[in-house]
Amino acid sequence: RFFAKQPFSQMLSGNFLGAPLGIGDDAAIVSIPNEHDLVVTTDTSISGRHFLESTSAFHIAYRSIAVSLSDLAAMGAIPYGFLLNITLPEYNEVWLTEFSGGIAQIAKTYGLTLIGGDTTRGPLAIGVTHLGLVSKGQAIQRSTAKSGDLIIVSGSLGDAAAGLDCLKRETRAVTDYLPSRYLQPEVRLNLGRVLGGFATSAIDISDGLLADLGHILTKSGVGGVINFDAIPLSNAIVDYWGETKARQFAVCCGDDYELCFTIPADKCDTLKVLADKVNIELTVIGQINSDVGNLQCLDSAGNPMEFLNTGFNHFYDN
Amino acid sequence: RFFAKQPFSQMLSGNFLGAPLGIGDDAAIVSIPNEHDLVVTTDTSISGRHFLESTSAFHIAYRSIAVSLSDLAAMGAIPYGFLLNITLPEYNEVWLTEFSGGIAQIAKTYGLTLIGGDTTRGPLAIGVTHLGLVSKGQAIQRSTAKSGDLIIVSGSLGDAAAGLDCLKRETRAVTDYLPSRYLQPEVRLNLGRVLGGFATSAIDISDGLLADLGHILTKSGVGGVINFDAIPLSNAIVDYWGETKARQFAVCCGDDYELCFTIPADKCDTLKVLADKVNIELTVIGQINSDVGNLQCLDSAGNPMEFLNTGFNHFYDN
Repeated sequence: RFFAKQPFSQMLSGNFLGAPLGIGDDAAIVSIPNEHDLVVTTDTSISGRHFLESTSAFHIAYRSIAVSLSDLAAMGAIPYGFLLNITLPEYNEVWLTEFSGGIAQIAKTYGLTLIGGDTTRGPLAIGVTHLGLVSKGQAIQRSTAKSGDLIIVSGSLGDAAAGLDCLKRETRAVTDYLPSRYLQPEVRLNLGRVLGGFATSAIDISDGLLADLGHILTKSGVGGVINFDAIPLSNAIVDYWGETKARQFAVCCGDDYELCFTIPADKCDTLKVLADKVNIELTVIGQINSDVGNLQCLDSAGNPMEFLNTGFNHFYDN
Repeated sequence: RFFAKQPFSQMLSGNFLGAPLGIGDDAAIVSIPNEHDLVVTTDTSISGRHFLESTSAFHIAYRSIAVSLSDLAAMGAIPYGFLLNITLPEYNEVWLTEFSGGIAQIAKTYGLTLIGGDTTRGPLAIGVTHLGLVSKGQAIQRSTAKSGDLIIVSGSLGDAAAGLDCLKRETRAVTDYLPSRYLQPEVRLNLGRVLGGFATSAIDISDGLLADLGHILTKSGVGGVINFDAIPLSNAIVDYWGETKARQFAVCCGDDYELCFTIPADKCDTLKVLADKVNIELTVIGQINSDVGNLQCLDSAGNPMEFLNTGFNHFYDN
């Protein structure tokens, strides 16, 4: 089902719209080049759960598309096209125009093409499905980390959690650094692309470092140790929360959409070259070990720390 | 985002689950064979809008997956894999077990593979994205009907509308013929497959014959005439509503997921062969003409008929 029968289809114009067949048939037709695998991922963002009810239509569009796109980054894939499932309580042209602006913005930023979707009436929710391409057999997986590998994260962590806190308290403009880290997360597509054939595993940090790194450990059948003091923080979050609180949020909270990945220890020197190439800070925060499924976070004295909330779970924690 | 972190992932077992990579990574990896195009379609089903609030979890799963799969049938594609975005008000193991039963049933019927998805908390809604394969350049489109072509529909129309009426009135068991036509529509995959290279255009009837055939006419830049008396009806709908009322619903209402397609007039003889091959009744109901965008339905005296409601539109008609 496509936008064809909806007035919305007419609003979705611009160079982010299109496909080999274009929008308006029963389904989109896409030609996958030979020697490539297709990567496909889907996410639903619900009003009041994945974004605040006060969030603008522009930011709802931008963030919903970004958080799903981040899965392609973690696989080392190049975006090929995406589908949007929009559920709206009512037809509202002003809202849709603003929403289209958000689509246009992120499409321009990352070179995305909207190839289809569906609009329905109901409680506000946005479903995004991204298709991506990787060279055959080159997708980076979660299940292939090895004991001895170094654990790396990109950028700084916790900013989105601080940004969300600002937005809830309405203390800062949506365009300030911290709120914008939540509303318009940077998607690490360029980093993911250069990690293919280099990283042994990767994941994007959506639920929180402990939770997401935990997925790598479980899937790979390994354990890991990270150092609390090594977690990279922005100046903005340290100013906002002070260093200790900032670091706790950086370890436990998600929504930053930075990448966490592992590399063989002997490739540590290459990391600097790679960081310069993509112009993203990359920080070694720990190491994979053989203590299966066990993830320890050590304080500056080398003692294991305990955290009450280790990540986002739709049915249990929240 | 995948089911990995949800207890639901453990419940989705059986041979309908799986992918080259399997569920639980950031995204599914799928290998598209050379010389094939990928076809992708997505649909959202909302509680109280696309299914009654009284609908069982089994039928919600079955129907949501079927209505989207029908788009693949209309393109002449073979199902490759599908993704499920499940939004639930609360974690309910009984409901999820029943829902999984519906997935298993339709997966078995049509040979489907679940390759990924997402579970979130919120108002009940099911998003389904199907990937399908067609030989390169062979997908059947809406935009290629030609003046003079015959207009054909498969099976019988209106049964789903009558079935929905039964369900609303709670007059019949969900397993009776009419309700089951609504709850478990037959997806015309086998028919779609043999239409490739034969039909000049095709669409599945989801919104109603007039509305959906209208899409073919608009996209193809042609017009069409259909004969009211030619619309195929089941005995069950005639018993339920009487012939005239049944025929009106058959023309205006959707949800049957039969295929409407066009063929060159000189291939009419082949139609019988084809119908026998797939064991589906195929009925010529009219002809394409050059009266661009105009669709007429003629009564038995040859006079154009008027219909108030010509199809389902999420933001306007309903």
